[in-house]
Amino acid sequence: MRELKPKSDPLGPENLLVFAGSVIAGTAAAGLSRFSVAAKSPLTGAFGEAEAGGWWIPELKFAGFDAIVIKERARKPIYLWIHDGEAEIRDAGHLWGKLTREAQQEIRAELGDDRVRVALIGPSGEKLVKVACIINELKHANGRTGLGAVMGSKNLKTIAVRGKKRMRVADGEAVKRLSKGLRDTYDEPYFSLGNLGTARITTMLSQQGILPTLNFREGSFDAADAISGETMKKTILVRRGTCYGCFVRCKREVQVGEPYFVDPIYGGPEYETVAAFGSMCGISDLKAISKANQICNAYGLDTISTDNLIAFAMESYENGILTKSDTDGLDLRFGNTGAMVRMLEMIAKREGLGDILAEGICPAAEKFGKGAINFAIHVKGQPAPFHEPRGKVGVGLGYSISPTGADHIEIPHDPFWASEAGVTLLRPLGILEPVDAFDLGPKKVRLFVYLQHYWNLLNSIGICIFTAKPFGPFTLNGIVDYVKAVTGWETSLFDLLKVGERHSAMARMFNVREGFTVQDDVLPDRFFQPMEGGTLKGKNIDKEQFLRAMETYYEMMGWDPETGVPRGGKLAELDLDWLSA
Amino acid sequence: MRELKPKSDPLGPENLLVFAGSVIAGTAAAGLSRFSVAAKSPLTGAFGEAEAGGWWIPELKFAGFDAIVIKERARKPIYLWIHDGEAEIRDAGHLWGKLTREAQQEIRAELGDDRVRVALIGPSGEKLVKVACIINELKHANGRTGLGAVMGSKNLKTIAVRGKKRMRVADGEAVKRLSKGLRDTYDEPYFSLGNLGTARITTMLSQQGILPTLNFREGSFDAADAISGETMKKTILVRRGTCYGCFVRCKREVQVGEPYFVDPIYGGPEYETVAAFGSMCGISDLKAISKANQICNAYGLDTISTDNLIAFAMESYENGILTKSDTDGLDLRFGNTGAMVRMLEMIAKREGLGDILAEGICPAAEKFGKGAINFAIHVKGQPAPFHEPRGKVGVGLGYSISPTGADHIEIPHDPFWASEAGVTLLRPLGILEPVDAFDLGPKKVRLFVYLQHYWNLLNSIGICIFTAKPFGPFTLNGIVDYVKAVTGWETSLFDLLKVGERHSAMARMFNVREGFTVQDDVLPDRFFQPMEGGTLKGKNIDKEQFLRAMETYYEMMGWDPETGVPRGGKLAELDLDWLSA
Repeated sequence: MRELKPKSDPLGPENLLVFAGSVIAGTAAAGLSRFSVAAKSPLTGAFGEAEAGGWWIPELKFAGFDAIVIKERARKPIYLWIHDGEAEIRDAGHLWGKLTREAQQEIRAELGDDRVRVALIGPSGEKLVKVACIINELKHANGRTGLGAVMGSKNLKTIAVRGKKRMRVADGEAVKRLSKGLRDTYDEPYFSLGNLGTARITTMLSQQGILPTLNFREGSFDAADAISGETMKKTILVRRGTCYGCFVRCKREVQVGEPYFVDPIYGGPEYETVAAFGSMCGISDLKAISKANQICNAYGLDTISTDNLIAFAMESYENGILTKSDTDGLDLRFGNTGAMVRMLEMIAKREGLGDILAEGICPAAEKFGKGAINFAIHVKGQPAPFHEPRGKVGVGLGYSISPTGADHIEIPHDPFWASEAGVTLLRPLGILEPVDAFDLGPKKVRLFVYLQHYWNLLNSIGICIFTAKPFGPFTLNGIVDYVKAVTGWETSLFDLLKVGERHSAMARMFNVREGFTVQDDVLPDRFFQPMEGGTLKGKNIDKEQFLRAMETYYEMMGWDPETGVPRGGKLAELDLDWLSA
Repeated sequence: MRELKPKSDPLGPENLLVFAGSVIAGTAAAGLSRFSVAAKSPLTGAFGEAEAGGWWIPELKFAGFDAIVIKERARKPIYLWIHDGEAEIRDAGHLWGKLTREAQQEIRAELGDDRVRVALIGPSGEKLVKVACIINELKHANGRTGLGAVMGSKNLKTIAVRGKKRMRVADGEAVKRLSKGLRDTYDEPYFSLGNLGTARITTMLSQQGILPTLNFREGSFDAADAISGETMKKTILVRRGTCYGCFVRCKREVQVGEPYFVDPIYGGPEYETVAAFGSMCGISDLKAISKANQICNAYGLDTISTDNLIAFAMESYENGILTKSDTDGLDLRFGNTGAMVRMLEMIAKREGLGDILAEGICPAAEKFGKGAINFAIHVKGQPAPFHEPRGKVGVGLGYSISPTGADHIEIPHDPFWASEAGVTLLRPLGILEPVDAFDLGPKKVRLFVYLQHYWNLLNSIGICIFTAKPFGPFTLNGIVDYVKAVTGWETSLFDLLKVGERHSAMARMFNVREGFTVQDDVLPDRFFQPMEGGTLKGKNIDKEQFLRAMETYYEMMGWDPETGVPRGGKLAELDLDWLSA
C-alpha cells in the first residue's frame, strides 16, 4: 500500500504482485503450507488476495526468502528461479502457451531437479482471463480475484523455487512437542477430511438445503449423493493427497478414463469444485466434474469464479438472454454436461462467448444486457463461492464486507462456529453465546467480528483452517504457543488477533482509496429473495435486519457506518495512521 | 448497574455498596490480596470505586463468599459477621463513634477470635465526610471516592469475616509452580519496594520535577530527602508490613514518640501520603506526616483527598480567601506543621472549617468563592493524587477520563510503561514503540488505551500492580496462565483484556446515566499553566494537543468524540447492549 499508487491499472506494469509466507511457514507443524498472493484485482478493481497450500512456500523459506514482490513487467515471457539465497530471471519463451503440467515438467527438466517447486500460470493467465489463478504442484490454487491474470500481465510464467536450508526455530523442543500434540489430538473420524476430502459435506448441505444449486436458485440437489465425497471415494479416487507436513490428507487424486481422461497428477475436485460444476450447473456426473477440475488446473482457472460464469450464462440462456447464436450452437441449459465442459474450455481459451465471460461476470452481464445482471451472483464483481447465505446468514455478512468480494477464505463461513460446540472451542475469544444460523443480531455480529479477526490471522500466518479450531487440532492458544516457540516472541492472542484486525482495516483502506464505499458492500438481490427449491424453500434474508447487522458490524470494527471508512482513532490504534484518508 | 436506579442519592438507602473479590483472590500467588468496593460516589456523583489489599478478601473467600452487596440502610448501627458460609447482622451501637483500632479490638474480643479480619469505617465515615474511606487491618484503605461515607450512611460500621475453608483450584501443581516462579524471579533490589516502601520514589520524583509540591504549584521539594523512603527507614521504621501471601513487603510500620505518638499498628505512610502531607503542604517533618497518616487510618479518611482539601485551604488562606476567622485562628500557611495536623483533625471530626471541607473540594470552593475554585486540583470533584501530569502527560489523560475522577489506581500512571524497557515488558500487547513522557500523539494514546485495559484487568482480578509487569514479576501471559490454573478456563490475554475494556465502558455508561458528558472530562486549569518551580519550571500541557489526544482516545475506545458515549456497536461487542442509552 505504500508502493502501489491508487487507481493503478491492475493489468498495467504499475500493479504489484506479492507472494508472501509467514514467520511460521516451513516449520514442522501440520497446516503451515499456506501462503498469500496479493495484488490489485483485475476482477474487482479492489484489494485482491488468494491463499494456497501445497509445497511451494516451505520451499521458498528453505531457499532463504519470506516473500517476493513483483514490480513492473518483463518485455518478453520470463520465469523466476529462486534457489538457496539467489534469484534469477530466465527466459520463458518456450513455456508460454503451455498447459501447467507441460510447463512444470519442462522447468524441472531444465533445472535438473525434480524437487523444484513451481507456482505458475496456465494459458488462461497468459490471456489475462480475469478469473485466472496461480497454481502450484498442478493442484493447489491461489484461486480468487484473478491474480493469474496479473501474473500474466507481467509476462511471468512461473516462480520456481528450491532450497536446502532448514528452518531455525527459537525453541525446537516446544515446536516438536506442539507439532506432535496436533497429530495426537487430531480426530480424523470426526472430521472425515482424510477419508472423504472437503466434499465430505456435499450430501449434508443438500439435506440442510444449503447446497447452492442451479445458480443459487435452489439449495438442495437431487443428485447430491452422486457427486459426494463418498461417491468420489468409491469410484474415481486413486490416492489421497496432502500438503507439506500435513496429516489431514484432505486432497484428492482422481483418475477417469473415457470420455474424459482425467489424470491424477491434477489432483481431484474440492467441495467448491464439486458444487461448482455439479449442483450449480445441475450436473450429476462426477467424472465430468473431475474433467472440469482438470481443465481449470491445466489452464489455470479459479474453479469457483469460472463455474459461476457458466451457471450465470446458463441462466441467461434459459431466460432467452443468450441464444445458440451466442453460444456457438451449444445448448447451454442447466444439466447439459457436454455444454458445461465445452463452455469451460471456451472461457479458458477465450473463444467466442468464452471471451466475453473471461472479462468477468459484471462486464459480461453488461454486455448481455436484458437484466442478465440479476443472474450474476457476485459481490464487488467477484462471484460467490458455494455457501448459501440464506441458510447461514453470517456468510451473507461476510460476502458483503469481504474486501475481495464474495470470498469464503476471507470470512468465517461455517455455521458451526456459532453453535454451542463451536463457541466452546473458541472459548479463548471470550464467553461467547451460541447463536442460530438465521440470527443477525448483535451477538451474531460480534461472533462474526471476532472470528473474522481469527480467520484473517489464519490467512496472515498461513495456518490452514482444517488444522485449526473449530475444524482441526490447533487451539487458539496453541497457535500462540506455536508462534512463541518458533519466533521466541513474547506474543499473545491479543497481539495476534490485532494482526487479523489490521488485515481488515488495511484491505478496507485499500478499497477506500480505490473509490469503494458502503454502496459496494451489498449482497446480490437473489439472497433477499425466497429460495426457489430445496429444504429451505421460501427462506430469504430480511433486508432490513441485514442492513442493521451491517451497521452494527461497522460500529464494532470502529468504522464509520455512514461511509464505511475506518475512523482515525481505530487506524491509529492499529498503527495504521499513515493510511488515514 | 441493573439494580441501582440512575440519579440515586449516594448517601440514601437506594445506593448499593458492593464489596467484591475476584476468581483468583485467596489463592497462593503473591499480590492477590486486593479487592474492590464500589458504589455511586458521594464525592463525585459518578461511579465510585476503590481498591485495597490486606487480608480481608482472602478471608472472605475462605468463608465461602466472592462478593457482598449491601442494600438499603440499617435503622441503627450494625455490623456484618460473615463466617464459614454464614452471614449475620449484629448490633454495633457500642462501636459507633469509635476509632478504627478500638472498634477492631472490640469486635475481635466479642467474636473471640483474633484472626477475624475487619473492614470498617471510623468516625469520619459515620459523620458522612465525603472523603472517608473503608479500612482493613487499620492500614489497608479502599481510599478514593468517599465510600466510607456510603458505608456510614448505611449505618454499617464493619464487615468482619473469618473462614476456614481453603480454595480449590483446577490445577494445583500449576498454581504452585507459577507462584514459586513469581517469588524466584522477583528482583527486590531493582524495585526496592521491600527495602524502602512506595516512598522509594520521593527523592527521584523531586529531582525530575514531578513531586507535587505546594498544591501542584511546583514539582521539586527542597526537603524531599527528609521525607523519603530512605529517611523513613533510617529513622522511624520498626517493621515492614505486607499483604496476604505477598513477598514484596512494601508496607511500612512506623513508630514515633513525642509530640506525635504514632503507633505501628496503623502502619506507616505510603508515597501518596508522604507527598500529601509533605511536599504538597510544604512540610518536611516525616514524624508529622506519620501522625497525619495515623489520624487518617484511625478516623477512616482517604489520605490523598483529605490532604488535597488541606493544601487547597492553605492556598486559599495564603491568597486571602480564608482568614484566621475562618480557621479558628490557625495560621494555615504552607509549611505550618501544627496547622496541618490540626486542620486534618478538624476535617475528621467535622469541626469548624473542617466541616465545610468535609463536604468535598468543589462544594467547599463554592462556599469560599473569590476564585478559590482555581486552587481546587480535582477532576469530577475528586482531588488529584500525587502524579504530576505536566511531567508525565499520560497521567493527565488518565485523570481526565477516569470514571472516578482524578485517580491513579484507575489508570496507568508511571511514565515507565512508555519507555523502551516498559514496552519490552509489555510485548504481549503488541509491538509497541516507546514514547516520550511529554508526548501526546496517537502512539501515546494507544499505549494508554491498552494499558488502561490492563490496569482495569488488574483491578478487576485483584492483582497488585507491584507484583505485575512492568513493576513486578507477574508477566501478562503469566496472569493468563495463572487464571487458567486456578479456574480451568481456556482463557487468553484477548479475553482478559476485554474484561478490562468492559470496565471502562460500564463505568462510562454509569456516568452517562448520571448526566456526565465530555465537558466533565477536563483537567484543572493549573495543569495547562506553567509549573511555578522545580526542575520542570515553566513546563505546561499544551491544551490543543491535549484535546486532540482526548479525541483520539474516544475514537480508539469506540466512543463518540462529540458526546463521549460508547457507540452501540462497541457496547454490543462488549456484551453490554443492555446498557445502550
